[in-house]
Amino acid sequence: MDKRLTKDELVFLPLGGAGEIGMNLNCYGFGPPEERRWIIVDCGVMFGRESATPGVDVIMPDARFLVENRQDVIAIVLTHGHEDHLGAVAHVWPDLRCPVYATPFTARLLQDKIVEAGLEDALRVRIVPLGGKLRLAPFELEFITITHSIPEPNALVIRTPLGNIVHTGDWKLDPDPLVGEPTDDRALRKLGEEGVLAMICDSTNALVLGHSGSEAEVERALNGLIKGLSGRVLVTCFASNVARLQSIAHAARDSGREVVLVGRSMHRIVRAAQDTGYLRDFPRVLDEEDATQLHADNVLYLCTGSQGEARAALSRIAEGNNPNIQLSEGDSVIFSSRIIPGNEREIFELQNKLAALGVAVLTERDHFVHVSGHPGREELAEMYRWVRPRIAVPVHGEMRHMMEHARLTSELQVPQTAMVVNGQMLRLAPGRAEIIDEAPSGRVHLDGRLLVNEDEGYARSRRALGKAGFIGITLVLKKSGRLAAEPVLHMEGIPDAVLGPVATAVTRAVEARRGGDLNEQVRLAARRAAQDVWGKKPIVRVEMVEV
Amino acid sequence: MDKRLTKDELVFLPLGGAGEIGMNLNCYGFGPPEERRWIIVDCGVMFGRESATPGVDVIMPDARFLVENRQDVIAIVLTHGHEDHLGAVAHVWPDLRCPVYATPFTARLLQDKIVEAGLEDALRVRIVPLGGKLRLAPFELEFITITHSIPEPNALVIRTPLGNIVHTGDWKLDPDPLVGEPTDDRALRKLGEEGVLAMICDSTNALVLGHSGSEAEVERALNGLIKGLSGRVLVTCFASNVARLQSIAHAARDSGREVVLVGRSMHRIVRAAQDTGYLRDFPRVLDEEDATQLHADNVLYLCTGSQGEARAALSRIAEGNNPNIQLSEGDSVIFSSRIIPGNEREIFELQNKLAALGVAVLTERDHFVHVSGHPGREELAEMYRWVRPRIAVPVHGEMRHMMEHARLTSELQVPQTAMVVNGQMLRLAPGRAEIIDEAPSGRVHLDGRLLVNEDEGYARSRRALGKAGFIGITLVLKKSGRLAAEPVLHMEGIPDAVLGPVATAVTRAVEARRGGDLNEQVRLAARRAAQDVWGKKPIVRVEMVEV
Repeated sequence: MDKRLTKDELVFLPLGGAGEIGMNLNCYGFGPPEERRWIIVDCGVMFGRESATPGVDVIMPDARFLVENRQDVIAIVLTHGHEDHLGAVAHVWPDLRCPVYATPFTARLLQDKIVEAGLEDALRVRIVPLGGKLRLAPFELEFITITHSIPEPNALVIRTPLGNIVHTGDWKLDPDPLVGEPTDDRALRKLGEEGVLAMICDSTNALVLGHSGSEAEVERALNGLIKGLSGRVLVTCFASNVARLQSIAHAARDSGREVVLVGRSMHRIVRAAQDTGYLRDFPRVLDEEDATQLHADNVLYLCTGSQGEARAALSRIAEGNNPNIQLSEGDSVIFSSRIIPGNEREIFELQNKLAALGVAVLTERDHFVHVSGHPGREELAEMYRWVRPRIAVPVHGEMRHMMEHARLTSELQVPQTAMVVNGQMLRLAPGRAEIIDEAPSGRVHLDGRLLVNEDEGYARSRRALGKAGFIGITLVLKKSGRLAAEPVLHMEGIPDAVLGPVATAVTRAVEARRGGDLNEQVRLAARRAAQDVWGKKPIVRVEMVEV
Repeated sequence: MDKRLTKDELVFLPLGGAGEIGMNLNCYGFGPPEERRWIIVDCGVMFGRESATPGVDVIMPDARFLVENRQDVIAIVLTHGHEDHLGAVAHVWPDLRCPVYATPFTARLLQDKIVEAGLEDALRVRIVPLGGKLRLAPFELEFITITHSIPEPNALVIRTPLGNIVHTGDWKLDPDPLVGEPTDDRALRKLGEEGVLAMICDSTNALVLGHSGSEAEVERALNGLIKGLSGRVLVTCFASNVARLQSIAHAARDSGREVVLVGRSMHRIVRAAQDTGYLRDFPRVLDEEDATQLHADNVLYLCTGSQGEARAALSRIAEGNNPNIQLSEGDSVIFSSRIIPGNEREIFELQNKLAALGVAVLTERDHFVHVSGHPGREELAEMYRWVRPRIAVPVHGEMRHMMEHARLTSELQVPQTAMVVNGQMLRLAPGRAEIIDEAPSGRVHLDGRLLVNEDEGYARSRRALGKAGFIGITLVLKKSGRLAAEPVLHMEGIPDAVLGPVATAVTRAVEARRGGDLNEQVRLAARRAAQDVWGKKPIVRVEMVEV
């Protein structure tokens, strides 16, 4: 056996998140090719979109490569508690059954999902303290406190015999994050001195100039803004942004308003934060019903639904479907959030409903009510100056973000920048970083309650149904092959005017059967007839039954 | 008969565009209620979205009210040539058969659509010169030159015995529009002195502070930007922005690049502009094939597809499907356009494909390459100071834009602001403006080549198909009511795992028939079985046939 093939290699394999924002799944492997051992960093979901994947709410990475190698998977390690980093654990873990490590708040959020999935007896999350270390031979891990838009974000240092890796996770440089500690830049500088082989880094805001800004600035701005408002005030934001919840609650207190939490995830996150030692001075919260007694000037609703989600609390309020909360002229709704690209129409439709009630809608477009949790270009540059990796690997971004990130690292004179997308195995050492292999990768849809591979095409065929509808044709045939009854047509999503011509075409095709595949002859005749009248080609299926 | 009921009234009735941006259809009526005569201002379309109206590319207003009153419809008058102002004329006109008036460039664009619809012998557009007047008793119209993002935008003055109306159309205040004259503010001020009862005004950018900026500034910026680029340069913008096309062509000339037009509508608009006296010094354009001979530094592609439209030229180039145009590392694509809300994902996917090729993507986010065609708040304020209407009527906006526009007019102390949405008939005079009636209104889908009313629900049922798929069941029964064959199932968009349980449930339901509606019993059984396995309820239809 060739000795070179058996020597140790250090590889990075993203199975999610490299080429998209969402469903992060990062794998680090060490060992000779036949005996690589793996740690998984993060295991998240992304959300489906009706236009692309109708009927699919949740999408996760295809983890089949890990399942096939499960005896070599050492652990899942989570950097922080956002859905796109932990949402797939409860789905993927049953096929891996490896230890899962997380810091306390992240573990607490994951616990809810574990219980939901009925896995609480099988999976016990192992808790790592902030700044803690883990020995997962051949890897040694160190958690380094950074800042983001959720408590307890961590960068991971992954030490291996072939060099050190910094996996940043999601981060920004917030000098005053309000909840938790600021970024441990001393540890990062020290790492830079120790020597870092590769940094695998967040690209989300590589297109954004400057600095993301601080939660403390938003706190001050919200405080001033809310003090100046009369009438009911409703603030919507991402529930997981605990610092923001605290800022809003303080603004309520400072302007003589009681806080009412609205929406399941608001309650869930506040509970999780308090369980793990955060939000110690969060004011007493009222429930919706008690708050109906308060004067409009004395209430502040802290509410889910900033992305216009139809089933979330704010959409229900805007539609007048919350019996305890009615908004009207003189009231204000603050969107203390950004628009996640793709959600524009839903958010604007929500804002239109609020506007129609006479409610003032305040957003980051016109007021300083939000800062991003991801690093702008100045912050990226600062991080690279601290860590000084030999190899930069942009992840957590679409191609346009990752390419811009790569342009920046090349300006910053990082010796090598390596681009990888999901499924590409990048050898980080020994030698120059290069792609050496491909692993199966893709997307798995949570379709209803079934997990189905995107390749199975159900969402795709539903998308086709959405465009041109469906015609199902049943031919009831006698043994002789003649029709025993008129063909039966099932049409859905197709204008009535199409029915007659299709029925005629089907009958004719049966009558004119030329031997060969009757099913296909009928299918094509129906499709052609639909197109002649309608200009569109529906999906047509023909079933035959003999009586 | 009550005399008050029969006296003349002046009314405004929007049938499209009030409560949405797109498909403008404005009606002005004059006379006693039973004998009102109408002029129609603009008759446009909007574009469908896959998530909301799958399979529908074009949506237009339901004009049934006008068709029912067609003997009283005097004319259709067009303010300018954008699709959302003229795109429905060829669809609606055959039911109205009234004269259509437009200025030369708008008429020229409409002519293409008339020919496409095979109406060239029936409909001859009547051309009004810029600044022209029309006597359409009881109305008198005057066209006032304004500025927008297309040649020949006009505000209309509609004079009636009960007062003057200013219908702004789409506008901005561009001191140097490059193509055409600047806004005729003298005429607007004069009108203000003459006295204006009501102004019906563009709300699109009522949320935008400040001023929209000038095409001349974009010209200078593009010129500098393009001079600094090497490699192939591709610029995409709205083809109808003729001034922009000219700016880009001049930038090409000034940086030693030949201009290549790519995409059908680029050719169409340049031809229309030149036919009507614009773009006189537009450089000679090359065709795609000849341009393959040029050095990369000597070519500039002016290209359709800035909104990420899958079938437009730029998407095809990004996918490598244009044999004459291959982009790669070192080339640049400039999006000299804005993102129309709702198109984000398509545009970003396009930009991701370009980024993956190594192409630099320059947008209005990072470079000054676009100005809006609609008035920011400063421009709105200026217009109200000139025209001084007694009544402000915000149109051309979603509710959030119209409400903000209304807040502004109330700050500006316009005596009355009246809010109307599609289908509400607003009496402008005599007396205080108020809503006095409702007219049927709604949306008509161009579904394939059929016009179908939104209420008919085909797009809605296709959307439901997209979410949960379809099951069609054929029961072949003997005269006795017993099954003559196994039930036939047509399933589409539904995971295979659902088939078995549904088939079993159907057979059982037939066997267990309890009298009553077998069809409904089978339908519910199938739906329930699907939900049990899948967690989703597909559309289920049952057809029975006797043999």
